[in-house]
Amino acid sequence: MNIAVLGTGMVGQAVAARLADLGHTVTVGTRDPQATRGRTEPDGMGNPGIASWLADHPGVGLATFADAAAGAELVVLATLGTATLDILDRAGADNLAGKVVLDISNPLDFSAGMPPRLFVDNDDSLGEQIQRAYPAARVVKALNTMNAHLMVDPHQLAAGDFTSFVSGNDPAAKAEVVGLLTALGHRDVIDLGDISTARGTEMMMPVWIRLWNALGTPTFSFKVVR
Amino acid sequence: MNIAVLGTGMVGQAVAARLADLGHTVTVGTRDPQATRGRTEPDGMGNPGIASWLADHPGVGLATFADAAAGAELVVLATLGTATLDILDRAGADNLAGKVVLDISNPLDFSAGMPPRLFVDNDDSLGEQIQRAYPAARVVKALNTMNAHLMVDPHQLAAGDFTSFVSGNDPAAKAEVVGLLTALGHRDVIDLGDISTARGTEMMMPVWIRLWNALGTPTFSFKVVR
Repeated sequence: MNIAVLGTGMVGQAVAARLADLGHTVTVGTRDPQATRGRTEPDGMGNPGIASWLADHPGVGLATFADAAAGAELVVLATLGTATLDILDRAGADNLAGKVVLDISNPLDFSAGMPPRLFVDNDDSLGEQIQRAYPAARVVKALNTMNAHLMVDPHQLAAGDFTSFVSGNDPAAKAEVVGLLTALGHRDVIDLGDISTARGTEMMMPVWIRLWNALGTPTFSFKVVR
Repeated sequence: MNIAVLGTGMVGQAVAARLADLGHTVTVGTRDPQATRGRTEPDGMGNPGIASWLADHPGVGLATFADAAAGAELVVLATLGTATLDILDRAGADNLAGKVVLDISNPLDFSAGMPPRLFVDNDDSLGEQIQRAYPAARVVKALNTMNAHLMVDPHQLAAGDFTSFVSGNDPAAKAEVVGLLTALGHRDVIDLGDISTARGTEMMMPVWIRLWNALGTPTFSFKVVR
């Protein structure tokens, strides 16, 4: 499948690399590909710059948000939550229409420091904002309740014995995402219902962040025991 | 230990009965004990009225909120979230000072129908509101992430192989609550930190409610796999 991964950060890199390993044709979307290819400096966490990462992953393409989305059958939003709607605007409604838009972002606002607050919650969600802004896109919220490394390689924790969730209005789009999650190694996927159920998983972020602090590692995840 | 359970609903009944079974001296607090003893009609869920429940549990006392709290070493808030602060006002600050106040309530507002919204979240929590209103009380948030039956008898699900959480500013109060949770059968208790971390567990309610709907049962709980 042709997949666009919008976002060049740690999450975008992890998802793009793993989807390419699974045999998909992956194009990373960015604002300015030429500028992105020049970013060789490590990020604030000490990860290699995106330019080095691209050199290490010659099978992964790089294009503008619009070109990446135009050529894709499925679009992954691996963006900072605060940038998601702006990036989708750059991708363009025509390039999203009819496509599965897998939203793995979270509405985190770090502008007032740690812990971040949610910039939308309770009566609305980022997933719903995206679906409302792009009614012809088939938005599915998933994977936003865990660290990027667990998203793409769940078996590194308890042999993958934890839960992931999908929320979305389009059953066929959710089925496609469940297939992708299963291919990534997710063993237990719960369909929560329509896109408004993204409120539930996005609102798990505050406890996730407190757990990260309490446990001293981001390598944990939630299992719905039942 | 002398324990006051404030609230006569299903949660209060479950907690009071189990704590009495564990050998504690339990007094249920209510607005008007005489009126409570007259409430024989079943509730909306078909559970027996509180008067029948009291007749079935002769070892459990009944008193006003203030009298129940005055005689207690530990106070459990098994109240509707919307009633919690009013009930604490009736209990009285003097009767709460220095005591462990175990808050198991959630800030759910059902006034606009299902799903309920949270009447406080993101930058604040009900746990923090209680602690601010009663600075001499030693507030610990716990047990609010699961159904009442699992609160008091975790072993009925997966032999108790799931997680409960504590949040609070007073380490000794949290240790006392962890001891109580362990006596109830909770095998995995994570200390999230100070009372502001109650935001995290209270904000798990939206996904809990959507899971209840998706799974068709309230008998499930979250395990933090790590």
